[in-house]
Parts: sequence; structure tokens; C-alpha cells
Amino acid sequence: MPSNETGGTTGLEDLFLDGLKDIYYAEKKILTALPKMAKAAEADEVSAAFEKHLSETEGQVDRLEQVFELMGQTASAKACPAIDGILEEGAEILEKYSGTPAIDAGLVAAAQSVEHYEIARYGTLVAWAMQMGMADVATLLQATLEEEETTDTALSSLGEGGVNERAMQEAA
Amino acid sequence: MPSNETGGTTGLEDLFLDGLKDIYYAEKKILTALPKMAKAAEADEVSAAFEKHLSETEGQVDRLEQVFELMGQTASAKACPAIDGILEEGAEILEKYSGTPAIDAGLVAAAQSVEHYEIARYGTLVAWAMQMGMADVATLLQATLEEEETTDTALSSLGEGGVNERAMQEAA
Repeated sequence: MPSNETGGTTGLEDLFLDGLKDIYYAEKKILTALPKMAKAAEADEVSAAFEKHLSETEGQVDRLEQVFELMGQTASAKACPAIDGILEEGAEILEKYSGTPAIDAGLVAAAQSVEHYEIARYGTLVAWAMQMGMADVATLLQATLEEEETTDTALSSLGEGGVNERAMQEAA
Repeated sequence: MPSNETGGTTGLEDLFLDGLKDIYYAEKKILTALPKMAKAAEADEVSAAFEKHLSETEGQVDRLEQVFELMGQTASAKACPAIDGILEEGAEILEKYSGTPAIDAGLVAAAQSVEHYEIARYGTLVAWAMQMGMADVATLLQATLEEEETTDTALSSLGEGGVNERAMQEAA
């Protein structure tokens, strides 16, 4: 872990570690939410998208553990009210729209708000790692950032490729 | 407001209205958070970015009220646990880093997670408005979406243009 001239940690290192613990907590929460979303989805393609992202998320947790190790830290989570709130909104969608033609459109929207939270956090962590000269850490986090961006684009395509149209059917 | 063949509302319309009320609540909360962020920022350029976005956010609230009107609805807010959680994380940053060299980097990161939440929500609302054939509504929401994307890019440039570097100073 880099240190400044006097050997203390810098504010940016503190921010970075806080952010790492926050996204570690978030990824673990997402791991528990995705199977419920896959189960609630009506269309096979939507369910498959969540299953695929579940598998990717497991790899993303592994990468975060590698980052903690590179920084000489034990992996640990810090409560992240943001992901709790974002997933709470997803749970509200599940409760209100499960079994209706609109459920998949609601699930895709909920998943995209999760993706964008992660895109924001990983984008920041990559910039901070680069600033601290930790290229190996930045490379790991950049790989996850690109997966999140690809997932977000795939979810948009699902929405516009039939999911939103099916939600136009009359609500029960 | 569009209706289906039997005159009832569709699931997509319900989802859209829920989403509209959610982002209306979020924008109003952001209006109260931005002045605190502008005040806590150390660098004038960071403070100015938040002041500029405050003024934009006022215009975004106006646009949402126009959308409610176009849909024949009274503007109303629906509690949005996601923005509450995201802003709670911003408040934690303020509490922990105010007055330290890392505050601006923390504030920029917090603001980018707000922007990404909005980008996700407005992106979804634009797609749903287009699906429902409401081009005038989609145009209003698209204008806001583009402002949020521009703000996010500007925040990244601020971070990489000196803010992250200044956060490398030793923490107090």
C-alpha cells in the first residue's frame, strides 16, 4: 500500500479502502438478490441474463478479494445504505408486479439501477487506484467496470427488444 | 395518457408513473443536498460544479412537472429508498472527511453515484415513454438524461484534473 513522505496513510487511501469495503458489501448483497430476480422473471431471456450476471458477480467478488490482498488488507465489508436502498426498490417491484406482464420491464429497470451504482463506484475506484500508482489494482477493477457496462447495455437491449412491449398488456 | 384496447391502464404505464414519482422525490432530495455539498467543498471549481448542477436540477424538476401535466396527473413524489441511501453515503463522507484534503475527492465520488442513479432512471423512463408512443414526454426526459451524463463526465474530469491528486496529501 502506498504511503506518503511521512509514512502515514493519505486521505485518498482512506477513501479508497472505504469504497472497496462498500462495493464488497454491495456485491455480496447482489449475489443474494439475483437468484430471486431470475426466479421472478417471466421470459427465459430475462432469467438467463440474471443467471449470467450472477456468475459474473461471483468473479467480481473474487477480484475484490484480490484487490484487498494486493493492498495487504483482509477483505471486509462496510454497510452500504445505497445498495440497500436500490435493492429495496427492486423488492418493491417484485412485490407489486410479480406474475403480471410488466414484471420483466420492472426487473430490467431495477437491475439497471444496480449496474449504474456499480459503474459509478468502480469508475471512481479505478481513477483513485491510478492516482495512487496501483496499476495492478486498477486493472482488476477496470475488468469489472467493463463487465458492468456490458451488462447495462445488454439490459437496455432486452428492454427495447420485446420486454417493454410485453409490459404494454393490460395490468391484472 | 395512453390506454389499451379495453380502456384500462397497462403495467408499463403503472411502472412509468411509479418511476416518475420516484425520480421526482429524488430530484427534490438532491435539491436539498447540493447546497451542503457546495459549502463543504474546498476547491472553488468543485463548489462551482455543485452550484451549477443545483441550478440545472431546478430545471429538471420543472421538466418532471411538465411530464406529469402531459400525462394528466398531478405531480407527486413517492419515497425513493435508493436516493435516500445514496445521499446517506454522501453525508457519511461529509462527516468523515470535511476539512481534510480528501473532502473534494469524496464529494465528487458521492455526486457521481447520484448522477448514475439518475442516468439509470431517466434512461429507463425515456425507453418506456418511447414504447408508449409519448414522444413529447420522451423529449423532456431525454433533455434531462443528457444533462446528467454531461455532469457525470464533468465530475470525472474534475477528479482527474487535480481533485484526486490533492487527496494524496496526508490525512489529518
